[in-house]
Parts: sequence; C-alpha cells; structure tokens
Amino acid sequence: MSLKPLNFIDTNLDRFIEELKDFLRIASISARSEHTADVASCAEWVKHAAKEIGLENATIYETAGHPVVYADWMHAEGKPTLLIYGHYDVQPPEPIELWTSPPFEPEVRGDDIYARGSVDDKGQVHLHLKGIESWLRTTGSLPINVKLIIEGEEEIGSPNLEPFVREHKELLACDAVMISDTPMYDYDMPSITYGLRGLAYFELRVTGPDRDLHSGMFGGVVANPLNALCTMIAKMKDERGRIQLPGFYDDVIDVSSEERAELGRLPYSEEDFEKMINIPDTVGEEGYTDLERLWARPTLDVCGIWGGYQGEGAKTVLPSKASAKISMRLVANQDPEKVGEQFRKFVQENTPAGVTVEVVDLHGGPPALTPTDSVPVKAGLAALEEAFGTAPFLIRNGGSIPIVADFERNLDAPVVLMGFGLPDQNAHAPDEKMNLKNYHRGVKSAALFLQKFAEQE
Amino acid sequence: MSLKPLNFIDTNLDRFIEELKDFLRIASISARSEHTADVASCAEWVKHAAKEIGLENATIYETAGHPVVYADWMHAEGKPTLLIYGHYDVQPPEPIELWTSPPFEPEVRGDDIYARGSVDDKGQVHLHLKGIESWLRTTGSLPINVKLIIEGEEEIGSPNLEPFVREHKELLACDAVMISDTPMYDYDMPSITYGLRGLAYFELRVTGPDRDLHSGMFGGVVANPLNALCTMIAKMKDERGRIQLPGFYDDVIDVSSEERAELGRLPYSEEDFEKMINIPDTVGEEGYTDLERLWARPTLDVCGIWGGYQGEGAKTVLPSKASAKISMRLVANQDPEKVGEQFRKFVQENTPAGVTVEVVDLHGGPPALTPTDSVPVKAGLAALEEAFGTAPFLIRNGGSIPIVADFERNLDAPVVLMGFGLPDQNAHAPDEKMNLKNYHRGVKSAALFLQKFAEQE
Repeated sequence: MSLKPLNFIDTNLDRFIEELKDFLRIASISARSEHTADVASCAEWVKHAAKEIGLENATIYETAGHPVVYADWMHAEGKPTLLIYGHYDVQPPEPIELWTSPPFEPEVRGDDIYARGSVDDKGQVHLHLKGIESWLRTTGSLPINVKLIIEGEEEIGSPNLEPFVREHKELLACDAVMISDTPMYDYDMPSITYGLRGLAYFELRVTGPDRDLHSGMFGGVVANPLNALCTMIAKMKDERGRIQLPGFYDDVIDVSSEERAELGRLPYSEEDFEKMINIPDTVGEEGYTDLERLWARPTLDVCGIWGGYQGEGAKTVLPSKASAKISMRLVANQDPEKVGEQFRKFVQENTPAGVTVEVVDLHGGPPALTPTDSVPVKAGLAALEEAFGTAPFLIRNGGSIPIVADFERNLDAPVVLMGFGLPDQNAHAPDEKMNLKNYHRGVKSAALFLQKFAEQE
Repeated sequence: MSLKPLNFIDTNLDRFIEELKDFLRIASISARSEHTADVASCAEWVKHAAKEIGLENATIYETAGHPVVYADWMHAEGKPTLLIYGHYDVQPPEPIELWTSPPFEPEVRGDDIYARGSVDDKGQVHLHLKGIESWLRTTGSLPINVKLIIEGEEEIGSPNLEPFVREHKELLACDAVMISDTPMYDYDMPSITYGLRGLAYFELRVTGPDRDLHSGMFGGVVANPLNALCTMIAKMKDERGRIQLPGFYDDVIDVSSEERAELGRLPYSEEDFEKMINIPDTVGEEGYTDLERLWARPTLDVCGIWGGYQGEGAKTVLPSKASAKISMRLVANQDPEKVGEQFRKFVQENTPAGVTVEVVDLHGGPPALTPTDSVPVKAGLAALEEAFGTAPFLIRNGGSIPIVADFERNLDAPVVLMGFGLPDQNAHAPDEKMNLKNYHRGVKSAALFLQKFAEQE
C-alpha cells in the first residue's frame, strides 16, 4: 500500500496521543444523570473530531437518552461501504481511591495511557479517526466509503441504539460493520474475534407454604422451597456438565475439527489460569478444551440465590420462598426466545411436588458468529498482519455484545471485531489503561483495513 | 380418690384465675435487658406463691443470667419424688399493634384468657401450683414428694439451666420430671407427649474463585459455588425423601406396628392441613404417614441460602461464595455429634470439583423418647382420663426441647410431657391465649397426677 498514510501516522503519533488525552478528559459517564452535560459535550467533541479529519455530514442525532454521532465519507464510487461503530461513553470510575492517577486526568506511565475510557472505548474509537485522517490528509481520499456511528449509551446497555439502527437503515446501509471494543488474545498477538456468546437470563421463584413455618412443627411433610430450588438447579446439568433443558443443544453449531485445530494453536496454560483466580481446578463440559468451553459452548450459571434466614446463628425456619437468578450463555445458532421456552418447559416438568414456581424473563440477546472466510474478516487479518508484523489469531469471546446481532439483523452486514485491548487492561475497573504501542499499531491497522477491504472486494 | 381436692378446685377456680392474672401482669421478658427487674420480681412472685400454698424451702437461686426458683415438699416418706419444671419468663410481645387487648393486661374473652405467657408457660406453671394447693389445703399433705424448679430463661434457650441442673443433682434428685409446656392434640383430646425430635444445624459454605467473575468471560470452565451448593444439597435426599448421609438411619428407632396403630387412631385431615398453610400437597419420606413424618422421622431442611447477586434485574456474575443453613431434626436414638460427623463426611465425599467447602456447627440437641409404659406416663394417662372424662392420646411433637434430654441425662429420670395448650393458642405470637376450661381441667390433672403416680409406684 501507499507508504504515505503509514508514514503520516508515525510522524503524527505524539499529536494523536495529545488529542486522545483531550477526549479522555471528558467525564462522559452515561450512567450518572449529573454527567449528562459531559456526555453531550463528548458527543460534540466526536462530531468536531470527525469534521476535522475530513469526514462529512457530521451530525448529532438526539435519542430518548444520550445522543448518537454520525459522519461519513462516500466518494469511493464502486467501492464497498464500511460502518465503523464505537462508543464515547464510559463506565463510572468508582472506587476512585484505587486509581493511581485521577480517572479523568490521563497520564502516560511506561507504555500505557491510564484513564477511564482509555481502552473502553475512546482509545479504540480514536484510532479509527486517526486511521481515516492518515488517508485523507496524505491522499485526499479513502480506499472505500466510510460511515461512522459512535453512541453514548453502550455502558448502560445501549437502550436506544437498536431503535436508532432500525429507523435509519438507509443512512447506515453498509457492506460490513467494524467494531474495535474487544481484547487481543495477548500482547503481540493481534486477533479478530469472530464469535460472541448470547445470553438468556431468568429469575426462578419457588413458593412453598404461604408463610415461614417452624421447622420442628412442620418439617417432614411440607415441601421446602429452598430444597426444591436446589433440586431443580442441580438437575439442570448432568454429571458431564451437559445442560438438560429439552432440545438445548439442537441448534448449537458444534466446534469443527478445523476450528478445534485453530483454537489449539493458541497458547493456554491451565495452571496460570487457575492461579490467576485462585481455583483448584478448571471444570466444565466433558469432551471440550477450556478455550472451547469458554468461547464455543453454552453455559448455565446461577448468578444469585436467596431465601430464608441469612443472619448469624441458627434459626429453625422452614421458609416460604426461594429465588435464583440463572444465566445461560448461548452460542450460534441458539435463539434466546427458544431457550426461554426450553427453560420454562424444564421448570414445569421438574417442579417438585408441593411447591409452585414462577419464571421471570430478565434479559436476552442472541449469539454472533461471523464466518472466518468472510471478506471483512480476511481484510482484518491482512491489516493486522501488516501492522503488527506477525500472523494474527482468530479468536472468540465468551461475553456478549448484543448490538452485534442487532447490526447483523437490521443491516444484513457481517460484523468484524478487531480490538486492540489486552486481557489486563482493567476495563470497568480502577487504573484502566490502553497500551500505546497497541494504539499506534491500531491506528495503522485501521488505516490498512480500509485498503485491504477495498482489495478483497 | 378423695373428692376433697377436686371439690376445692371447683370452688376456688375464680380465685385461681384472679391469681393467674397477677402472674400474667408481670412483663417478665427474658430477652430484654430493660425488663431484668420485671424478670426478678416475677421470680419473687413464684417464690411467694410456692410458700403460700404450703411448699417449703422456697429459694431463689441466682445464675449467670435470670434466677431459678426452687421449692419442695418432702414429707411423703417411702413415696416417689416428682420434679415439676416450668418457666416464668415470656417471649417479647411484639408486634404490639396486632394484640386485641394489651399483652400484659390479661383479659378473659369467651373461654380464653388472653395475655403474653398465658399458655407459654405461666398458665401451665400455675395449674401445678394450684393442684398442689388443693391437696395441702384439704388434706394437709401430698400423696408423693414434690420438687419445683421454675426457670427464667427458657425463651432465650435456657443457657444457665443445664449447668444449674448439673451442679444441683442432689437437690433435684427425683423419680420423674413433669413438664407442662406442650399442646394437646386438639380440644377435648388430652395428650401425653412421649417423643421430641432433636436437632443438628450446620452452615455449609462453598468457595469457588477468589473474587466475583464476569459470567461471560469465565463461564464454562470455572466451578460456580452456587451451582455446586445446589448440587450438594440436592444429593442430600433421594427421590423417596430418604436422607443420604452415610449411616444416617443406623440409630433411628423405626415406628413400630403398635405405635403406627396408635398414631393411626388420631384424627388427621390432610386437606385441612394443606389449607391451613396454603400448600398444594403434603410431601415427605415414602412409606410413612404425615404424622409419622412429622413426629417420628428425621428431616433435612435448608433454612436459609444465599450467594451472588440478589438485587433487581440481571447481573451476569459468577460469584465467589455461596452458603446455606441446613437443619436436621433427629429422632431417637440419633446423636447430634454423630450426625455432625455424617454430615461432614457426606460433604467431603460430595464436594464437586473446583470448589472448596467449610462446615460450621451451629446448634445441636438430642431427641427424646419416653417409654409409653413407664410409670409417670401411665400416671399421666390415668390423671388426664379422670380429669377430662375421656381417653387421652399418646402423641409426639416434631419440635425440640433440649432441656428434656438434659434432665434425663443429669437426673436419670424419665420426663413426662403433659401439656394443656392447644394448636391455635398463639404461643410466641400476638393474642396468645389459654383456654380456661383446659386450665380448670389442667389443675385437676395436676392434682390427680400426684395421686396416680403414688398408686402406680
């Protein structure tokens, strides 16, 4: 490719970092109403930054919540269109006292810049802006058409983004969606994330007698809702770690031998993992490796449970009610709605005698799986290889990013997750940081992607 | 028997009730330090009442907590000695606003006297005092020797009674112990309670990773302590309701065919029971009736459980810790210490991979079972039959009264539980009441028991 944009990036890196610091100084905490003005001025900052680098139609769209910033450059006739998504809002910084330097006073220490939002996601939005700038300033054009959509509500669950996307399908029409909001597998291991897990989350409520009873006077003939809840939860998985909801695995795309080989290439130390979180052993579904269990297999975890007496000492009560929060991580092609039906059916079929149950649907989102031979994924791999000077990895992520499926469904375009974070980046925690070498290589990757995508099409 | 004591009781009933009202006016709430003076003056009241009726050696013994009142009459040479135990302290009356009349202003409405302590246990202490009085006033003597021990800490778990009994074995030496602190099976169904369940109560704590983890990033390879806890609890009972601790049933005295026939004579409506506490079905151990399950079979109930996120909505956390309070009701001849070993062994053998567990011993007490052909039980049955004019019932109680086993162990004497409460008496609740017809028949039963015990020996 033309050396001009890459040289421009090297020459201007210090300026980029100073600009990023400005971006990071804005306390755009979407969860806090007292920061609404900061969130709004952060949207203005993004709009201004988009204009400055030569994007057009820079616009702030108001929503029922925080605004969405849009901008584009649509002069690459006959070339594909890339929609770059990111978010300018950040998590609350608390507990403040655990930060080495104040969360909204960015500070470079060693190879890292420390600030709330440095990696999640301002730093990764900014590297795309600078990648675009490197082309427009040095060549006056981009290799492909680009649309930018940067929202301000990601950290509060993007409540207004899906409606916005649905209402602006034409504005956002594209051939691929680029998101940089995920970690690399490790330092010097650039990665494309091609799979995310979905989510189906329920509260299961069990009621026995209509009041708390004396366990001596009534124990022995009254179904105890706590025992009943434990029995139901225990039955949800078998000894091999297989989830027992009827039809649960019917839609699961199993790990292929090719994928297994690919994942097997990744360095993974069970011992290091166990030490990191201080557990005696990793466990999980039989017949799968830890990485496969983490990324490519569904789970069922109790996230919370409560009922009866929880204070000090011994209270001999036979409680009236017990509840649990149960979360399932889903993989392609599971459907949260369908899993909800399976969950309800399982509960119905396994309710012990003497109690009644209620299932409350709390949250759901579909899994995502981008074909690894799709054009934007191949372009991403090529861009990373050139920017990092090493072969990139194809990885998955066990978490969920619901908007990925929203984009795929509404825009009918594949999503490529090319992130530049690191596993120890402290996203959502004190001392959040972005590695500046990765930022530098990220700007280059962003610039290179525009060209690689043009070439692949 | 001599008609004199019984006639005396009929003639003096109104005075007895006025005296009982005085007793009930004292707010002897042992749990509340601001009522310490009331508790002390109540002990004085009992000492004075014992003297008044002709008992000797009336003494207040100070303890580390509230005092014990002792008195005796030991002039029936060659005759057996009965130790009458009761308690003069009461439960706190809260919630006050749910009382129809103030808890320490006794009021007769219909056939009942309403006040805190009316049935638990002042009314039932008083009926023994009046039974003794009826003999001493009319004949100048008692058919047997009598010792009285009335404590002031029963409602806070009798912390100083067992040490007192241990230190005063000679003072308290007797041939039988009489306790009136249990309910009759129903109105017009006088009953001797010959069995109580024991208790073994533990807290089970499960730890997985050393901090709460993101259920997406880690779910699938990390043992979840909540799932693990549920699995362990579910395994503690099988499908037939049998408790799975190793050797748990080895020491259990099974229900004999005679006892089964006797319990089968008791009227019991499963439908009424279910309606009372609003449950769809009674459940329990296969092969036993509800009454057998309630009284003569051990149980395992989760009294409390907690861990992870218990707030509103969906938090996708894989929690670090989970705990449960687990109570077992024991039956003769189970030993709480031995059951503790069985529990620890079960937990050790059934701890799922990837978690660590801790068992905390919270409370324990042995079961009690008095042979129904023992002399004091037979005397009790005879006394009740004459006082009530109907054949009494032999029943058990699913609850635990730890002092029963303390008496049996320290004094080597059988305990007879001859109570005059009713199932709807509101002990420990607002509008506690004592049925005055039962009080009247109770005084007569107390008087008659002295004679029947003398005759049986």
